[in-house]
Amino acid sequence: MSLNISGIYPPIATPFDNEENVDYEKLDANLTLWNKIPFKGYVVLGSNGESPYLKLDERVEMVRRVRQGSPADKLVIAGAGCESTRDTVELIKQMAAVGADAALVVTPCFYKNAMTNDALYQHYHRVADLSPLPIILYSVPGNTGIDLSSDVIIRLAAHPNIIGLKDSAGDVAKLGNIVYKTNHSDFQVIAGSAGFLYPAMTVGCVGGICALANILGSEVCQLYTLMSESQHDAARELQHRLIAPNAAVTRQFGVAGLKQAMDWFGYYGGPTRSPLLPLSTADAHTLRQAFISNGFVPNVGK
Amino acid sequence: MSLNISGIYPPIATPFDNEENVDYEKLDANLTLWNKIPFKGYVVLGSNGESPYLKLDERVEMVRRVRQGSPADKLVIAGAGCESTRDTVELIKQMAAVGADAALVVTPCFYKNAMTNDALYQHYHRVADLSPLPIILYSVPGNTGIDLSSDVIIRLAAHPNIIGLKDSAGDVAKLGNIVYKTNHSDFQVIAGSAGFLYPAMTVGCVGGICALANILGSEVCQLYTLMSESQHDAARELQHRLIAPNAAVTRQFGVAGLKQAMDWFGYYGGPTRSPLLPLSTADAHTLRQAFISNGFVPNVGK
Amino acid sequence: MSLNISGIYPPIATPFDNEENVDYEKLDANLTLWNKIPFKGYVVLGSNGESPYLKLDERVEMVRRVRQGSPADKLVIAGAGCESTRDTVELIKQMAAVGADAALVVTPCFYKNAMTNDALYQHYHRVADLSPLPIILYSVPGNTGIDLSSDVIIRLAAHPNIIGLKDSAGDVAKLGNIVYKTNHSDFQVIAGSAGFLYPAMTVGCVGGICALANILGSEVCQLYTLMSESQHDAARELQHRLIAPNAAVTRQFGVAGLKQAMDWFGYYGGPTRSPLLPLSTADAHTLRQAFISNGFVPNVGK
Amino acid sequence: MSLNISGIYPPIATPFDNEENVDYEKLDANLTLWNKIPFKGYVVLGSNGESPYLKLDERVEMVRRVRQGSPADKLVIAGAGCESTRDTVELIKQMAAVGADAALVVTPCFYKNAMTNDALYQHYHRVADLSPLPIILYSVPGNTGIDLSSDVIIRLAAHPNIIGLKDSAGDVAKLGNIVYKTNHSDFQVIAGSAGFLYPAMTVGCVGGICALANILGSEVCQLYTLMSESQHDAARELQHRLIAPNAAVTRQFGVAGLKQAMDWFGYYGGPTRSPLLPLSTADAHTLRQAFISNGFVPNVGK
Repeated sequence: MSLNISGIYPPIATPFDNEENVDYEKLDANLTLWNKIPFKGYVVLGSNGESPYLKLDERVEMVRRVRQGSPADKLVIAGAGCESTRDTVELIKQMAAVGADAALVVTPCFYKNAMTNDALYQHYHRVADLSPLPIILYSVPGNTGIDLSSDVIIRLAAHPNIIGLKDSAGDVAKLGNIVYKTNHSDFQVIAGSAGFLYPAMTVGCVGGICALANILGSEVCQLYTLMSESQHDAARELQHRLIAPNAAVTRQFGVAGLKQAMDWFGYYGGPTRSPLLPLSTADAHTLRQAFISNGFVPNVGK
Repeated sequence: MSLNISGIYPPIATPFDNEENVDYEKLDANLTLWNKIPFKGYVVLGSNGESPYLKLDERVEMVRRVRQGSPADKLVIAGAGCESTRDTVELIKQMAAVGADAALVVTPCFYKNAMTNDALYQHYHRVADLSPLPIILYSVPGNTGIDLSSDVIIRLAAHPNIIGLKDSAGDVAKLGNIVYKTNHSDFQVIAGSAGFLYPAMTVGCVGGICALANILGSEVCQLYTLMSESQHDAARELQHRLIAPNAAVTRQFGVAGLKQAMDWFGYYGGPTRSPLLPLSTADAHTLRQAFISNGFVPNVGK
Repeated sequence: MSLNISGIYPPIATPFDNEENVDYEKLDANLTLWNKIPFKGYVVLGSNGESPYLKLDERVEMVRRVRQGSPADKLVIAGAGCESTRDTVELIKQMAAVGADAALVVTPCFYKNAMTNDALYQHYHRVADLSPLPIILYSVPGNTGIDLSSDVIIRLAAHPNIIGLKDSAGDVAKLGNIVYKTNHSDFQVIAGSAGFLYPAMTVGCVGGICALANILGSEVCQLYTLMSESQHDAARELQHRLIAPNAAVTRQFGVAGLKQAMDWFGYYGGPTRSPLLPLSTADAHTLRQAFISNGFVPNVGK
Repeated sequence: MSLNISGIYPPIATPFDNEENVDYEKLDANLTLWNKIPFKGYVVLGSNGESPYLKLDERVEMVRRVRQGSPADKLVIAGAGCESTRDTVELIKQMAAVGADAALVVTPCFYKNAMTNDALYQHYHRVADLSPLPIILYSVPGNTGIDLSSDVIIRLAAHPNIIGLKDSAGDVAKLGNIVYKTNHSDFQVIAGSAGFLYPAMTVGCVGGICALANILGSEVCQLYTLMSESQHDAARELQHRLIAPNAAVTRQFGVAGLKQAMDWFGYYGGPTRSPLLPLSTADAHTLRQAFISNGFVPNVGK
């Protein structure tokens, strides 16, 4: 049987100090807060973790630290996708050595024209063959320009070491179809955003990896619980309130918005690495309103 | 109070004979079958009606015939969006004169760079001011390249003559947010496809305008009923089976696929107008499998 | 032998009065000015003519008036592309009856997924078979989302009634390749913009249909002459100065920008039809600077 | 005065053995052949060098080897762009230490929404401030999804350590405008493809970094010479013949096509790194025809 990955995960932000170095103490402080929330575990070095901006040894160290700072029953899912197949396999092995439970593997994307269904299928198949960790496919076309197709996903779901999918595109018809076409296996589909977590679960997704859970972790977990308990009216109400704040810290203002909001809600957000820029004053105001107008009050001195 | 548009509608195909002329007898025959299904009404001259291929007088005649061939309690929603504001208003007036209950107005799209939020807002506002019919906004970026933004939709929802939205893009987070931000008004959001009808309804959409309802009208209406009665498990199961056939007659094979499948399921589909091409034999086979493999058996002699 | 279409054409703006009705007197006034410039002819109802906003009878009347207001040796090329094949053929016949010399046929575009190479080939082939006028293919992906492929163009060039191509995308490698692969026939390739007229001619294009020629007609014709006379240094210098003003009245500010600049340079521009909006004050300022900073002084009272 | 970078460069392919390890002997063998061609120098680790698939130390070693294997008068331009500003600066320093003459810095691209004009400007400005090597901007939207805007490029051209631009998008109007707006400085614009080398030079570009030069280096250099000597007719003829082979080894078949053709023309191409796939037999046939039908005969035993 596959590792059960159902539940809610924050794809955690990577804390930097003012010189843009990783600040592991701030990471520990955030983990201390997050550990009180009923997350299924943590995703380290997803898109929100600025993984393309971290050196490989920094990435491995981040996973090690999160594993050390988390209770044993929390899963640690490590972002390990690289452009080449060989680098991906090697990084997964290093992630396994420091305690990761599963690897999240984003689609390679630089050679867009060459990333055919066939190329992506063979990439993931080879990675899964060689990986000591179970593999979770990861499609995030907003960043990569590559939308991993249902056909490839459904074919890959037959591989015993490929246990699930994180899809951030928000096409719930696609997600529902994948759930349906893989329901003879243990394949698990995870929503890649809090913006469509509830409707995604109504068509069979088993959890969410949600940037917003860095900030409103309890609320995202509550939405998961409401849905699990078939409290649809309450779920819809809560889902409604989460859409705009979620959009603000993802497609609208990105990692800089996420970190700014973390600072407001009691976590350490801190600066991003360059070339990401801090929010302008106007954007910070808009971000704040996206929380306030939906009933989430940031702790901010103005 | 606004016209209540909640429910299921087929955006009906326009039947042509072998010379590509509109075949009104075949339309009547289809209506006779559709009238037995608990549709809320009909959408005439949506994208699936090949409206860009019909002359203006053919469009008006189609609406007149559908009105004549339908029971009085069925709503007739007429596709009336043109590129210019003035043509749109004029066509709506003609649609009203032949019995349409509401007008579905697609976003203008030719001058893509100029279709700013401001231009689209003013277009719809002016149309709504001058229209004798209530207006339903229509966003279908797969055809138009224009995704009507939440901001514009929410602002337009305040206009007393703009009563709803059909959105075909399938972004349920967007749909949920629009439902939430307009819930103080009578604004009604309609899913533009059977592929995400159930999850869209879980976040507050009140119905669907679904190409697939031309073919599997009873099943789409059943999904609506299951959701209305909070039978979520049965709804999910039925939704799952509808996704692939729906995709096959929309984004995958388009109107030619829709008409081919209509022929198989007892309706008159017939040819499309050129430049649309009939399906190849291979594509027809794939289309047929999309129905068969999900439990819907076409009546086809091989 | 094919009609020789080499040379420069303005795709003329359609003048409207303040009620958005076509103002044929203003058209005559503009023609009187344009007739003094060594244009090869006029394109009526191209993208810059707001053709999607004109009724079919208005389009025909525009062609009739331009034919009447032009010397006999000027070619009149009529924009006649409609979404359906049958409407396109019918409109071409009407354009022929009022004196058009050739028809410019834009790619159909609403059903984007269905506009395959095969569908587009068959559309143009059938139009050319039935057309009393020679056909010029027209690809303008910035508006249509459809980039007519080199393969289809090269195959269509073999049709005796398809005499040329207007391509507005600016991919000169594509244009050069089409020139090369069709050089055994009379096929003529025309640049669709003044922004790349000179480099397009260096790879074999024989002229330009250039929005900017509505305003700076003499200068665009001069560039054509310089290139024809192999005065490359002077051509480069003039080309350099035309790029920014051209961009300003096309992709940057569109038809509203074109008409505003026409007003400044002694022509009648006037309002656009809605939903196109007039320029904001700030945009008008930027537009003006695009002319002034490249040495073209608008006659504007401030 | 800036480093003079005018001339032709192959962005060299990185040779791998059958285990996908870098094969430095094969690199030396290729260099021995390339050194006989009047290239201005070599670009190491551009897009065609599979740079995203090489580890950082492999990238540095590639530059060292190319420097060692090249005459002193050949420039070595090192691809050094990373996603983060800090990694880019560090890699440039390492490239400088092993003998690179200039650094080619591709736009960061993962966080597409955040790569605003402002973010890109600040990224390049900071890199240029800290770099021991002169910087060449690099825009390749086909891979990155980011089109570095003219405005940002023109502003960056004022920085004394930013000496040029490689642009692979093929928009010669853009290139001409940048040449014109920076002609008071030493800024040098280089065409990023052999497909539009000649027309780009007619508007002021000073050379080309051309994948095709890996294979047809003499011909690409000849085109440069013809243009430099104002032999426009001969330049056009040669340009025409290069467009299709160039397209075949870039956007059509990518690095796998490039390496396949290298094998045919006497160089070592060899395998790509996974996930890039080798060409299918059918694609190899099409590729071969793209050379043969334009007069370039591959040495292939069938």
